[in-house]
Amino acid sequence: MHEEAQVGRRITLAAVAREADVSLPTVSKVLNGRSDVSPTTRTKIERLLEAHGYRRRTAGPPQARLIEIVFHELESVWAMELIRGVENVAKRNDATVALTESGTRHAPDPEWIAGVLRRRPLGVVLVFSTVPEDVKRQLRSRAIPFVIVDPAGDPDPDVPSVGSANWAGGMAAARHLTDQGHERVAIITGPEDLMCSLARLDGYRSAMAMAGHEPDPALVRFGDFHVQGGFEHAMDLLRRPDRPTAIFAGNDLQALGVLEAARVLGLSVPGQLSVVGYDDVPPARWSSPPLTTVQQPLQRMAEEAARMLLRPTDPSKPALRIELATHLVIRQSTAPPGGR
Amino acid sequence: MHEEAQVGRRITLAAVAREADVSLPTVSKVLNGRSDVSPTTRTKIERLLEAHGYRRRTAGPPQARLIEIVFHELESVWAMELIRGVENVAKRNDATVALTESGTRHAPDPEWIAGVLRRRPLGVVLVFSTVPEDVKRQLRSRAIPFVIVDPAGDPDPDVPSVGSANWAGGMAAARHLTDQGHERVAIITGPEDLMCSLARLDGYRSAMAMAGHEPDPALVRFGDFHVQGGFEHAMDLLRRPDRPTAIFAGNDLQALGVLEAARVLGLSVPGQLSVVGYDDVPPARWSSPPLTTVQQPLQRMAEEAARMLLRPTDPSKPALRIELATHLVIRQSTAPPGGR
Repeated sequence: MHEEAQVGRRITLAAVAREADVSLPTVSKVLNGRSDVSPTTRTKIERLLEAHGYRRRTAGPPQARLIEIVFHELESVWAMELIRGVENVAKRNDATVALTESGTRHAPDPEWIAGVLRRRPLGVVLVFSTVPEDVKRQLRSRAIPFVIVDPAGDPDPDVPSVGSANWAGGMAAARHLTDQGHERVAIITGPEDLMCSLARLDGYRSAMAMAGHEPDPALVRFGDFHVQGGFEHAMDLLRRPDRPTAIFAGNDLQALGVLEAARVLGLSVPGQLSVVGYDDVPPARWSSPPLTTVQQPLQRMAEEAARMLLRPTDPSKPALRIELATHLVIRQSTAPPGGR
Repeated sequence: MHEEAQVGRRITLAAVAREADVSLPTVSKVLNGRSDVSPTTRTKIERLLEAHGYRRRTAGPPQARLIEIVFHELESVWAMELIRGVENVAKRNDATVALTESGTRHAPDPEWIAGVLRRRPLGVVLVFSTVPEDVKRQLRSRAIPFVIVDPAGDPDPDVPSVGSANWAGGMAAARHLTDQGHERVAIITGPEDLMCSLARLDGYRSAMAMAGHEPDPALVRFGDFHVQGGFEHAMDLLRRPDRPTAIFAGNDLQALGVLEAARVLGLSVPGQLSVVGYDDVPPARWSSPPLTTVQQPLQRMAEEAARMLLRPTDPSKPALRIELATHLVIRQSTAPPGGR
């Protein structure tokens, strides 16, 4: 019987109960994330469900119609844009957004999974790069669809995901500066362990090469995507005798730090220094001067992810991966070099 | 029997069913926000429940443990701070935040109520000034607790609410400027129909009077709490021959607009113009220069509201109203007048 199930016949919950030597209601409790099952029994049943590749036909009787979104940190300037995207789709589908802050930049906490199995949402939008294998299996066995929204650009290959075109964005930012005549263009990209940082850096390098400029290694910095980090790198770059005439700041927060460094050093923007951000979150419009930046369509990315959750999918097909285009938004922080 | 119920004896659902001439399950469906009841029957049962002051003992069998937060607009810079406050309390109580965007600045949409009755959350945080009477009755009859978080400062008297001290905040902002020697201090407060705008304006007036300055009516403006509005008022104020040496901007977004106006007009901040914001949302820290501002403890206000929901209350006692203190955060956008 073990054999049969593995070659594709659907295993029934009754068969799992027999094999685990428990009652059918106990199996059902485990499936529904109830807490009144001993950890040993729960693990035994989980393993059997996984071994047989059990998949629920539906997520059970409808409760609250929830679309979950899970973040590593709510304070991220991305968070509100992504929430709004999910809320737009939820509203049109008579659903409500449920929101959890959990885990690290890379994956949600293990406790989160117990909660989501109890809540049985219509689907889950994960704002993480990776999803642990056991989490994937638990969600799949309960027929809870999930999609990664990954502005950082390094999604698991076997999970549906929505990202954006980081290399092309980095290229567009640097090219805008070289087109204006800048030759000494610095970059403060993101952390070295994020794919998006590397992709934006490579886009910058290609744009510099296309314009015939050898990028000075002293002008290439890895930042932390925060305002203060951008400020510190910019102070260092702008105090050099051969200071850059333009800085591509890797994200908008770092660009705000660059603007503050310019103010402290008495350099006018864009007269004496051009600055380009990345993301186009609202503070980019509110800065003084308003930032030229690369727009990641964060709200649309989240909408796309929420729509993918609500669409029926064929589990035998490879996971859908979407990359939305970025585009340059020109505001007032860039100008040809040599002004005042 | 009608009489009896109205003088305080608990009405049973069976009695409501008899009076409405429907079955008990039908009454139960209405209580649970199910959609398979005709609108006429629903209204009849709603009215009877209301007339008898029916209150559920509990919110029924536990489903997903949700704490709802409802906003007029998610794009508000307040929104993320408030969400984080509710999430902090939810996490400690093994609950999840559910989020809805609905209604106008004053009250949620009528459709929202049907959804919340279905979802049966542990409680609801409403980021609105007022709650329509029928919404209050519906929530009360289902034993769903609710609290208003009202940074705008005009809550219903019969609803528990958490606000902050707007008059004292306006006083602190203006006093900081007069203490530094500013005499021509302009104010761009919020819209005229929000209590918080009027309270901040009155605080400013009292501080000016305390310092012995007659506020010039030409320097008192009502804004719209947006960046562009702040920019336009500031352009107008700063082009006057007798321009102010300081502007109290009413909120942080308007203050960002004031900074941009100063940049466009070539005025240095704080050398030639001091600027004070209000709220202390993250963009206030990220601006160039970083803003001196009045901090509304938005996250703590939301935490307080969420905690009130989870505490058992005595419905015979008056609704609890809390006002948290504001305080001035001095950064780099203010200095004595006469610098450069």
